[in-house]
Amino acid sequence: MTTKGLERTPVPRDKEDDYTRKAAAHRRAFAEQQTGAVLEHVAQYSFDPAQLPGDIENFMGVAQVPVGLTGPLRIEGEHARGNFYIPMATTEGTLVASYNRGMRLLTECGGVKTTVVKHSMQRSPVFELGDALQARTLGEWLDDHFSEIQHAAEATTSAGKLVEIRKYIIGPLLYLRFNYTTGDAAGQNMVGKATLAACLWIQTNHPNRPHFFLSGNIDTDKKHSQMNTIETRGKRVVAEATLSGDALKSIMGADAETLFHVRQISQAGAFMAGSSNNGAHSANGLTALFIATGQDVANVAESHAAIVYAQLLANGDYYWSITLPSLVVATYGGGTGLATQRECLDLLGCYGTGQADKFAEICAATVLAGEISLSSAIIRGDWVSSHDRLGRNRP
Amino acid sequence: MTTKGLERTPVPRDKEDDYTRKAAAHRRAFAEQQTGAVLEHVAQYSFDPAQLPGDIENFMGVAQVPVGLTGPLRIEGEHARGNFYIPMATTEGTLVASYNRGMRLLTECGGVKTTVVKHSMQRSPVFELGDALQARTLGEWLDDHFSEIQHAAEATTSAGKLVEIRKYIIGPLLYLRFNYTTGDAAGQNMVGKATLAACLWIQTNHPNRPHFFLSGNIDTDKKHSQMNTIETRGKRVVAEATLSGDALKSIMGADAETLFHVRQISQAGAFMAGSSNNGAHSANGLTALFIATGQDVANVAESHAAIVYAQLLANGDYYWSITLPSLVVATYGGGTGLATQRECLDLLGCYGTGQADKFAEICAATVLAGEISLSSAIIRGDWVSSHDRLGRNRP
Amino acid sequence: MTTKGLERTPVPRDKEDDYTRKAAAHRRAFAEQQTGAVLEHVAQYSFDPAQLPGDIENFMGVAQVPVGLTGPLRIEGEHARGNFYIPMATTEGTLVASYNRGMRLLTECGGVKTTVVKHSMQRSPVFELGDALQARTLGEWLDDHFSEIQHAAEATTSAGKLVEIRKYIIGPLLYLRFNYTTGDAAGQNMVGKATLAACLWIQTNHPNRPHFFLSGNIDTDKKHSQMNTIETRGKRVVAEATLSGDALKSIMGADAETLFHVRQISQAGAFMAGSSNNGAHSANGLTALFIATGQDVANVAESHAAIVYAQLLANGDYYWSITLPSLVVATYGGGTGLATQRECLDLLGCYGTGQADKFAEICAATVLAGEISLSSAIIRGDWVSSHDRLGRNRP
Amino acid sequence: MTTKGLERTPVPRDKEDDYTRKAAAHRRAFAEQQTGAVLEHVAQYSFDPAQLPGDIENFMGVAQVPVGLTGPLRIEGEHARGNFYIPMATTEGTLVASYNRGMRLLTECGGVKTTVVKHSMQRSPVFELGDALQARTLGEWLDDHFSEIQHAAEATTSAGKLVEIRKYIIGPLLYLRFNYTTGDAAGQNMVGKATLAACLWIQTNHPNRPHFFLSGNIDTDKKHSQMNTIETRGKRVVAEATLSGDALKSIMGADAETLFHVRQISQAGAFMAGSSNNGAHSANGLTALFIATGQDVANVAESHAAIVYAQLLANGDYYWSITLPSLVVATYGGGTGLATQRECLDLLGCYGTGQADKFAEICAATVLAGEISLSSAIIRGDWVSSHDRLGRNRP
Repeated sequence: MTTKGLERTPVPRDKEDDYTRKAAAHRRAFAEQQTGAVLEHVAQYSFDPAQLPGDIENFMGVAQVPVGLTGPLRIEGEHARGNFYIPMATTEGTLVASYNRGMRLLTECGGVKTTVVKHSMQRSPVFELGDALQARTLGEWLDDHFSEIQHAAEATTSAGKLVEIRKYIIGPLLYLRFNYTTGDAAGQNMVGKATLAACLWIQTNHPNRPHFFLSGNIDTDKKHSQMNTIETRGKRVVAEATLSGDALKSIMGADAETLFHVRQISQAGAFMAGSSNNGAHSANGLTALFIATGQDVANVAESHAAIVYAQLLANGDYYWSITLPSLVVATYGGGTGLATQRECLDLLGCYGTGQADKFAEICAATVLAGEISLSSAIIRGDWVSSHDRLGRNRP
Repeated sequence: MTTKGLERTPVPRDKEDDYTRKAAAHRRAFAEQQTGAVLEHVAQYSFDPAQLPGDIENFMGVAQVPVGLTGPLRIEGEHARGNFYIPMATTEGTLVASYNRGMRLLTECGGVKTTVVKHSMQRSPVFELGDALQARTLGEWLDDHFSEIQHAAEATTSAGKLVEIRKYIIGPLLYLRFNYTTGDAAGQNMVGKATLAACLWIQTNHPNRPHFFLSGNIDTDKKHSQMNTIETRGKRVVAEATLSGDALKSIMGADAETLFHVRQISQAGAFMAGSSNNGAHSANGLTALFIATGQDVANVAESHAAIVYAQLLANGDYYWSITLPSLVVATYGGGTGLATQRECLDLLGCYGTGQADKFAEICAATVLAGEISLSSAIIRGDWVSSHDRLGRNRP
Repeated sequence: MTTKGLERTPVPRDKEDDYTRKAAAHRRAFAEQQTGAVLEHVAQYSFDPAQLPGDIENFMGVAQVPVGLTGPLRIEGEHARGNFYIPMATTEGTLVASYNRGMRLLTECGGVKTTVVKHSMQRSPVFELGDALQARTLGEWLDDHFSEIQHAAEATTSAGKLVEIRKYIIGPLLYLRFNYTTGDAAGQNMVGKATLAACLWIQTNHPNRPHFFLSGNIDTDKKHSQMNTIETRGKRVVAEATLSGDALKSIMGADAETLFHVRQISQAGAFMAGSSNNGAHSANGLTALFIATGQDVANVAESHAAIVYAQLLANGDYYWSITLPSLVVATYGGGTGLATQRECLDLLGCYGTGQADKFAEICAATVLAGEISLSSAIIRGDWVSSHDRLGRNRP
Repeated sequence: MTTKGLERTPVPRDKEDDYTRKAAAHRRAFAEQQTGAVLEHVAQYSFDPAQLPGDIENFMGVAQVPVGLTGPLRIEGEHARGNFYIPMATTEGTLVASYNRGMRLLTECGGVKTTVVKHSMQRSPVFELGDALQARTLGEWLDDHFSEIQHAAEATTSAGKLVEIRKYIIGPLLYLRFNYTTGDAAGQNMVGKATLAACLWIQTNHPNRPHFFLSGNIDTDKKHSQMNTIETRGKRVVAEATLSGDALKSIMGADAETLFHVRQISQAGAFMAGSSNNGAHSANGLTALFIATGQDVANVAESHAAIVYAQLLANGDYYWSITLPSLVVATYGGGTGLATQRECLDLLGCYGTGQADKFAEICAATVLAGEISLSSAIIRGDWVSSHDRLGRNRP
């Protein structure tokens, strides 16, 4: 299946135009020849590779990931309002059915309230000084020159706005978080470019020409971190709902008292484990939505962090909220404009500019549906049997 | 784009057979009618929906995710040996190019050494007792009855082996991690079923009929946790390589001393941030590989955790290792058997039984390639310009 | 106050016998002469310095830390049973009064149930191998030779028993936690010595003479860590009580419903903050007890970690537990035998052998008293006014 | 040793004047009678109890904690400059000797550079709103009224200055960190009082009279948290030094290359463990200094967090820094004015106003001395034997 020799035969590229069906076919043929595999289905794509520059290199075909349709999910957000049908791309059996059940409950209980409470995308350069005093002093200089730095940063982008520069010193190192709002793009590249410009401005204008690296690893891009949970990365979004005790019982077979009792147990467990998320499984819903809609799916690493906050109300209803502190999503740029991805965004009325907060609200609402469904299954005890029925696909 | 009324119109299902092209078309038509979207490309899939039960519900079509071909990557692992061409499904521009560059360096330096150092998939039930003393006492009883519990658990599975039951008490709660090896499956469902059987055996045979929930949230499934990093979830895999200073300079434009210097900075940053990963961006490589090969992509949440350990050698070479402590992957079951997914596994010689460790090694080696490439770009300073050149796709 | 020159004048020592009143006086005179300070009260100690070897070097006098008497606290533990009067050494106003109030409530509600659920003191050497495969292989070899290693370790100590060796691999490094029970000593030195013997045995007997360092920093001694919270360091102790709603209201002015409501808020806050403790202020009670009783007070770093688990009961009572996962205490050795320290241990009936679990239970019960008192003050709103009344000491 | 009945006999208090030798004697007699213990040494204190109000309640005597004298430690800080003799109160054998050795090395290498890089003491109230949108809206209102809130807060204190209000939303909860500078006091009570005034102002002036609790548990007072490490609590202080390779070898018996090699190992270990501190044992030095100088010793919980950042220099020297991100100390108020405590502060020239930053610098420099000493012992391998020689005190 693999070549064993020491020779390195690189993947072929077409110097004229590498984004053609022909170039892709050439690479598939090369791969088949090198490995013995047959790439028949990978070759089945319905769009023109000419639209791929900026999304991928060495294109050879597609992964066809099945998409299931869920909903309706009633959302009463600031931006997302109405009943939504939500496409979820997954190969995990029961996932779609489980989320769908949670959506039904939420919808019957009047829907999910959603709010984006903060926007903050960042690049985190680090300046390396001679000692801690110089690091502190440079930090003060940055405060004094914020508006010029802001100007330098924002000159590189039409959508990005530099909101603040947060400072964190370790030894002689001044780590910074340049926090931006980024409009409808996720904005990682935008803020990288803007921050580079800002740092070059600093380096040019500060008398000591301080040295920097564009990332000191506290961004923390494509990685969960407590810092993201605390300080926000991308969007901080809340989904909340009040579930009637009756609906919980009839639709979920779960009673509110037991759910709340178990919530204490799962919270303590998450705290002990040092978990990124004291809820159940946000990553399932987010990943499925991300693949379907052309998000940068690797951002599930940051985006799956979550904090559930719930209360059992005096009338027996259950208030349930989930806060996603570092949801990184876009409705413009990246993979969002590709063939199936754009169609799935259209399904949500979320393609293009002015839609990112709406999409973020849909993500959070979807996650809440999954929380309710899985938590109910755990206390109901049919979790395993559902998976056994729906979730096994052995050849 | 969305229906605004309170009526709940559920997604149509075909009671006879819901896994047909017709049923999928029916759902697409429904979705189009409800939302006004057009689902043309989503409809373009090349496999028979009849193979989907167990992978998805409410199937309506596919996400076509572009796949790029990278490699060769020379791996000298226990299981993966040779030059590999690796399919990466992504919509993030520069990703494929960047990983490819890292692979070239690694290959020219003699390849990546890879080792799976631990297997441990778990389900974590919690027993709720009357007080802490009872919790401790039940824990001791479990020790005394381990072989019977093991028997009960393993009776439900051919592949799963119960290795140990770890005990963690909070108040009157006995949280357990039932740690298994699971063969070539990721095994979440397998261990759920086995652990349920084990808990039922305990409940039946212990004189007090202790009460349990099947998850106390310390598994921690689909969530990063420090517990996973410490104790392992899925596979703990190490990729390591010694890079010659000369190759680093010529291929990456980075010198080993600077890389190691900056490593100190990025390590301190990751530590301060409370990051899941003191490396650069494992999630990028893993996600692209996971989508291409039919993994449960939501497991990126756990799998992206990583610990880089590096040393600058006396001769100027650079020893670089990355340890993935909770890599959850499979080569059998789930989405691995689907059309494009299986082809991509075939490309790696990894489809089917007996291949999971090999595939895990390829994952780790790929991640290492990405680490080297991005880290070099950061110190070289052309990170932003590359993204500007390759990674922008604005309509 | 300080000498400004570059000369280094070392602190004088008496080569004959450095543990005398005369040697101490000599050092005080030296310090006074060097700095201009007057050390009058520091000189007032009532014991013979001859008993200090093994506790301190360069002895020059004492810190006189005020001790307050609290109690009675009714404890119904395994080892601690009865009404206890507890000495607390502190200079933080309101602390003694606040704990005392919590003790009153607990005692009137029937007392605190306490249980030591796990003993595990460790030293964590790290073996440095050539690659990850060698690290894994050495780990397997350790499993195969556990009883010999155990023998080597236990030969160095009468009290220490090696329970298990846990293995954690990063790259080519095999980190180990040698977990012991240590009788009535805290045992850090004991397990250091035993583990050194074990590692030397391994090094001598393994064909490759593997190289090790005695600490790889995962012990984690004198430091909080998630690993300690998960795996236990020292003793894992639970204190639990059921508080009647009426007593809460009459003694604390707090109602159980509000306490539980706010518990949800403080839990979510602690989780977001990445806190070592989702309770209120265990460090206050532990530190005061530790200073009074001759504990190694620096172990507050580990010992203050805690997990509160509570439930509001159907009858309106409040079940409240706190778990201290890494309580490091001793009733024998170290500072426990010194003059005032031993008297304070005697007050608790805890000096000497066979008392460590009893003392650990008293620690946990005391902590619980403080939790209840402070939590009630926060919801009652008189927290600030109490501090204003009792806790200000401005000259 | 303990009374066994259900009767609750409270500790006696003198209603006229509870801060007298007589009242203390009365309590000791009571304790002796209740428990059978003899409190002879506890009774030996040399100050007038009349100075204790605000520091303790139910005073009955003292803990006499041995103090060792270390130094000189050469510090070249902003505030601390010169050679210092440092009092350390401990009962852990070898501690004083070990720190002393590190101080010698640092002094011979030209001293420690120290800098306080940030001041930030906080109280963290939480406002509980009807939903997340209201929480966000209230947050915006706070921004708009910052100067009035600042005015209300600062009206309660002469020393405290409100620097910023940071906002962190979870569900409908608006958690705030009111960050202050607090002059020479640690300031917990000061900021509690000021924040209460601020919150009452908000409640009075906001049209909705929003409800709050004075702590939402993200302060995080007397608890380590990642949030403190990131955002600072108290003072963020850096100590740094460049150690000559020769001095390391001659004084410590350790070579710089090996120290740096092992640093990579201990950093990776700390990261895996989820430790509060990637260094060695800051808690030892801090606790000993805190007890000696009348600090609130429970703040070791927060203060022991640390980030070591080191580099091996091209010339073979070793740059070593340690950053204490949440050092909580005072030179005024609390226990600092008590008899022995004030004398020990005088020894450092640190008693009273205008001294807190100087004292913080001394703390950090002391910690660095301990890091070097212990790290060297670990690689030198005589760690256990030193403890065996100096650190055992068995009766």
